[in-house]
Amino acid sequence: MTDRKRALLDSAVRIIARQGVRGLRVEEVARHAGVSTALIYHHFGDRSNLLQSALLHVEQTAEGYTLATEAISGRDVLIATVLGEFQDDSNVRDNSAAWGELRDAAIFDESLRPTLAVQTEQWIDRLAGIIVEGQTDGSISTAVDPHTTGQRLTALIEGLSSRWLSGLISTDEARSLIETAVVRELEGAVATSAETSK
Amino acid sequence: MTDRKRALLDSAVRIIARQGVRGLRVEEVARHAGVSTALIYHHFGDRSNLLQSALLHVEQTAEGYTLATEAISGRDVLIATVLGEFQDDSNVRDNSAAWGELRDAAIFDESLRPTLAVQTEQWIDRLAGIIVEGQTDGSISTAVDPHTTGQRLTALIEGLSSRWLSGLISTDEARSLIETAVVRELEGAVATSAETSK
Repeated sequence: MTDRKRALLDSAVRIIARQGVRGLRVEEVARHAGVSTALIYHHFGDRSNLLQSALLHVEQTAEGYTLATEAISGRDVLIATVLGEFQDDSNVRDNSAAWGELRDAAIFDESLRPTLAVQTEQWIDRLAGIIVEGQTDGSISTAVDPHTTGQRLTALIEGLSSRWLSGLISTDEARSLIETAVVRELEGAVATSAETSK
Repeated sequence: MTDRKRALLDSAVRIIARQGVRGLRVEEVARHAGVSTALIYHHFGDRSNLLQSALLHVEQTAEGYTLATEAISGRDVLIATVLGEFQDDSNVRDNSAAWGELRDAAIFDESLRPTLAVQTEQWIDRLAGIIVEGQTDGSISTAVDPHTTGQRLTALIEGLSSRWLSGLISTDEARSLIETAVVRELEGAVATSAETSK
């Protein structure tokens, strides 16, 4: 992606985060980014394509949110990754808000669904991959199912994110809740499997 | 609440579920319910009050969703309650969609936040109360913290709900994910507490 295209998408994400998807017009994104509407159409095609590109951009941006960690075990990387979703940083907040807006717009706008499905799956796979790494280095039990655990953890992040963005819970509370969820998932899977094999 | 008022709120919830909150006008709710706009204002005051009443109504409606269960243990009631959030029933879907819309509207509309905070807390307390019942009857370990577990389970329901409503996961998948989350929470808390007391 060119720097210019990336800057335009950053702009779109900020507008979506602050004003929502429903009323979003391509002209507004152009004005906000200080470019012509024609240039937006040139880079992204129509509004629907622009929204799909924004959804993709949001997930790619979030990939960089893993908190810096000295730790090298898969378990610690997993925790640093989920904690990275909740940071007192306006870019992280905007990215989270834009994802929520685009995701919920897909309930009404079917054209967004295929991209939403792909990006959600990619996010789940990213966590599942970290779990597999943890299973390889021995920090996560093989009793943990990588994919369904990734599904639950990402869905929980989405649920907590909306509470966090509307101020119902603080950044620290959101982090504490998601960190405990990871621990419960990992320990619970071991306990359940031990019980089943009794 | 009078039957008429309840019918008007049912109408408002259906419109919110299908069209969202942002564009919602009081006139539309009146037209949809086949009453005068003045009557809506009479019952609910302004738009902001109508949205708050709708939020309250959604949470109260959801209280009736616990699936029928023969079981009397707190653990089984907890599972039946979370499963009840995902049903192939248009009323349940509309209620879930309206809750999501109102919840996310609160990110932008501060007037909705106090009601959202109260209703979310009420929902969390409802699950926490069931957990306490389970601890009393012995079906749930006292190692489980009722309130934070309620926070995580309700937030996970919210995250799964949006995926369910946009067709990313089926009703059965949503149910299986939330049921396993309950098991992981309960077993994980026991495992973690056993480890701490070692």
